[in-house]
Amino acid sequence: MIDSPADLASQAARERIRVAYNPELLRTAGQRFIETLSAHLASVQASEGRVLNWTSPTENIARAGVLRDSASDSTDPTELVTRFERLIREMLARGQNLHDPRYVGHQVPASLPLAGLFDAVGSMTNQVMAVYEMGPWSTSVELAMVDKLASYLGWKHGDYAGFVTHGASLANLNALLTARNVALKNCWSAGLSHSNQQPVIVVQGDIHYSITRAAGILGLGTEQVIKVTLDHRRRMNTEELARVLTSLRDEGRTVIAVVACACSTSIGAFDPLNEIADICERHQVWLHVDAAHGGSALISPQHRHLVAGLERADSLVWDAHKMLFVPALCAFLYFKQKKHSYQAFEQNAPYLFDPSAPGLADYDLGLRTVECTKRAAAFGLWGAWSLFGAQLFTDLVDVTFDLAQVFFQKLSAAPDFEPLHEPQCNIVAFRHLPPELHGESPAIIGEFQRRLRRQVIESGEFYLVATSLNGTDALRVTLINPLTTPQHLDLLLETLRCTGKKILG
Amino acid sequence: MIDSPADLASQAARERIRVAYNPELLRTAGQRFIETLSAHLASVQASEGRVLNWTSPTENIARAGVLRDSASDSTDPTELVTRFERLIREMLARGQNLHDPRYVGHQVPASLPLAGLFDAVGSMTNQVMAVYEMGPWSTSVELAMVDKLASYLGWKHGDYAGFVTHGASLANLNALLTARNVALKNCWSAGLSHSNQQPVIVVQGDIHYSITRAAGILGLGTEQVIKVTLDHRRRMNTEELARVLTSLRDEGRTVIAVVACACSTSIGAFDPLNEIADICERHQVWLHVDAAHGGSALISPQHRHLVAGLERADSLVWDAHKMLFVPALCAFLYFKQKKHSYQAFEQNAPYLFDPSAPGLADYDLGLRTVECTKRAAAFGLWGAWSLFGAQLFTDLVDVTFDLAQVFFQKLSAAPDFEPLHEPQCNIVAFRHLPPELHGESPAIIGEFQRRLRRQVIESGEFYLVATSLNGTDALRVTLINPLTTPQHLDLLLETLRCTGKKILG
Repeated sequence: MIDSPADLASQAARERIRVAYNPELLRTAGQRFIETLSAHLASVQASEGRVLNWTSPTENIARAGVLRDSASDSTDPTELVTRFERLIREMLARGQNLHDPRYVGHQVPASLPLAGLFDAVGSMTNQVMAVYEMGPWSTSVELAMVDKLASYLGWKHGDYAGFVTHGASLANLNALLTARNVALKNCWSAGLSHSNQQPVIVVQGDIHYSITRAAGILGLGTEQVIKVTLDHRRRMNTEELARVLTSLRDEGRTVIAVVACACSTSIGAFDPLNEIADICERHQVWLHVDAAHGGSALISPQHRHLVAGLERADSLVWDAHKMLFVPALCAFLYFKQKKHSYQAFEQNAPYLFDPSAPGLADYDLGLRTVECTKRAAAFGLWGAWSLFGAQLFTDLVDVTFDLAQVFFQKLSAAPDFEPLHEPQCNIVAFRHLPPELHGESPAIIGEFQRRLRRQVIESGEFYLVATSLNGTDALRVTLINPLTTPQHLDLLLETLRCTGKKILG
Repeated sequence: MIDSPADLASQAARERIRVAYNPELLRTAGQRFIETLSAHLASVQASEGRVLNWTSPTENIARAGVLRDSASDSTDPTELVTRFERLIREMLARGQNLHDPRYVGHQVPASLPLAGLFDAVGSMTNQVMAVYEMGPWSTSVELAMVDKLASYLGWKHGDYAGFVTHGASLANLNALLTARNVALKNCWSAGLSHSNQQPVIVVQGDIHYSITRAAGILGLGTEQVIKVTLDHRRRMNTEELARVLTSLRDEGRTVIAVVACACSTSIGAFDPLNEIADICERHQVWLHVDAAHGGSALISPQHRHLVAGLERADSLVWDAHKMLFVPALCAFLYFKQKKHSYQAFEQNAPYLFDPSAPGLADYDLGLRTVECTKRAAAFGLWGAWSLFGAQLFTDLVDVTFDLAQVFFQKLSAAPDFEPLHEPQCNIVAFRHLPPELHGESPAIIGEFQRRLRRQVIESGEFYLVATSLNGTDALRVTLINPLTTPQHLDLLLETLRCTGKKILG
């Protein structure tokens, strides 16, 4: 009996599928994967290569395109595994090496390698959430970590609600959406165009840009974000906050929320949360705290004073993928009152929510997040916490916060460096001021910092970032790799000096 | 010389950190990880266990909490690896087994196992995006896949823009935010409360709930979503669409967008996109197409007729984590006109965007997404595509779409089953109607489907979902595991019959 051409096509397709899903291929490729990744990690931790592998976007995109289009037709497992390993090596050779101790850049950590493995269980088995059924264990793990982190807030089980979302920007949006829906009855269903007043959001002057964005997204308008001035340490000026709220009340304007920082992105300043909470209570205004970075201070007995009052927030954001050192993204959003967790959305999705098991809907997290399908985003944190225990996470906070003090002392002692603030956590903004720049204008000094940084990061010697303070550019580090030592910081200053000389000379 | 207590504490902390970051620990744990995962995959593919490991949320959460709190203080690598393996085994034993051929549930695939490994490179090395610098390779890989998928739309490089976001719900929100900002000048900055009319969104009757949600989030109001009636195959009734748009024009109301489905979630119906695009052009209205599921029909010569006209959409969503079989989340959002990609947001984040290298900002994807930090979400797709080639993805679409036709024939041939539509893709809604239910009310028949489904999924014999059509509940499958065969579908019908008998008997 001769197969028809369609049958033959289908047989070839089935063979390709069988090979792609073969557990033995996974085993062989997986072993290469682990060998390659662990060797790469060892090399990166020993600073054997460059921190950032700088290549221009056009060149990298072209290369990614060439590889994308060059698969062979072979279904031979040995050939596939060889090719798999080549692709993995290329991915590793062209990335940003956050595990190099000379990585002192954005608030993205040198994540715990085994947290990456725990996270990968989700990617390999495609555990997702929206309804409990689809991710019974991923949902449970997430809620177990929601409870654990909330215990550091001192909140009572049953009172609050929390969940994980894909990053703090989304969590901030979700929190402000909730605050908007609470403040403006019917706006979810009727919209804002009915309203003949302009509700506002009152924020810390250095607030993350996702808050202003949220005002734009939510239809409130970015112009309706009122910035409160900062004190000498760039914390929210609480006297000014009280004045602003009083004046808004006198004008009869609705305040959707006050948004405070713990800590700010620019220099890591922690707002005085208890004072702010007092004022918000007096004015009966929703308090949202962006504690994406600083929330983790809660788990350090030495540093938790920085976030005193955080437990009084109506909503707060705390990123595990920042100072709990797990891979992105794993952002916790909390509501002090459980009922608010359901106030962001109302919806009708009959194929998702089952009337035959109504109690279960409490565990269908899709009811409460902007995403419908969600990754098993808490696997990394839960796994690392269950494996190593809580103390490791306290250690990571303490060691990196301490290192910032060391760096501050080094900057203060060096005649050609200027720290721009005393660090409260592991973020430090500073400038390099070689003698040649003395007496120069802020614009020229700022431009020098930018050029200096670009040369250093493209050389691969260090990775640090830039910021702008009071209109002048500055350098900025986040000490978010626990393998960075004081010696690396000495080397950073030397590298900046050498590169600066080349630029000026 | 005696160390001070603080020094000792710090030394212990450093030792814990050294162990946690030790590449050798990663290597040993990683080998166990791969052995355990590949053995699990083999067992699941052979249906040796249950599809869904059903355990109640309270029991699972309690267990996750016990494990979370039971780490030992040991820093002994052997102990850590043993414990690591125990945790991995527990995670696998309590999940949803999408790779079991009896998984025929939500639109979440039995993902390509090696796509999971490629994705894990991102988790292990924490490659992220927002600025190009932080993820030069993850950004490049994403843009290479943006170009590849766009090539199936026939779009010309340079005209369009696209990026990956964390799921279709977020992508739909982003698209409608853009359409809102384009339709209503100044609303981003001034807000919607100025406006004295109520702009609307016009949608297909079976549209995904994230569209209605988006109207609520964006401040338009969920009541301003106008549903167009459906034809006999639950596709948008285009005559009705033309009437609705004409009547809205006569009323002087702004239409933010028309939203069409390719395909609908409930039964997988594909709207007639060319007719809809004609009408939208005539009315000069933004056309957004939710092609999260059906976009992948483009890569199948056999099925691409289903999405004819998709290339005429102003914006569209296409999930790789649905019919391109990569792990969640990897949703592509496209704008036909490049300029629109930047119209969703405006922001000022001096620490992110570098004036010293202005051309680079084109590659800083954080300028264009709701998220700031984003995972390297395209690693899985790029890796699998580069390894296996495009044909495998065509095969996956064809094989699963074909299987739905087989299932439809089986349902049609069985006296006690009723298919509720002829499938256009791999989604089929149906009912089990044993003789005992003949003449019963729709409510009773619907309740039976719900109970039947719940018993079957909790038994672990099959995983399928439910939907509600014209007010009556029904069963629904998505054939999204390419290892599912016609024999499995026979077994599904038998399992439903047996379970139904138990319920009725």
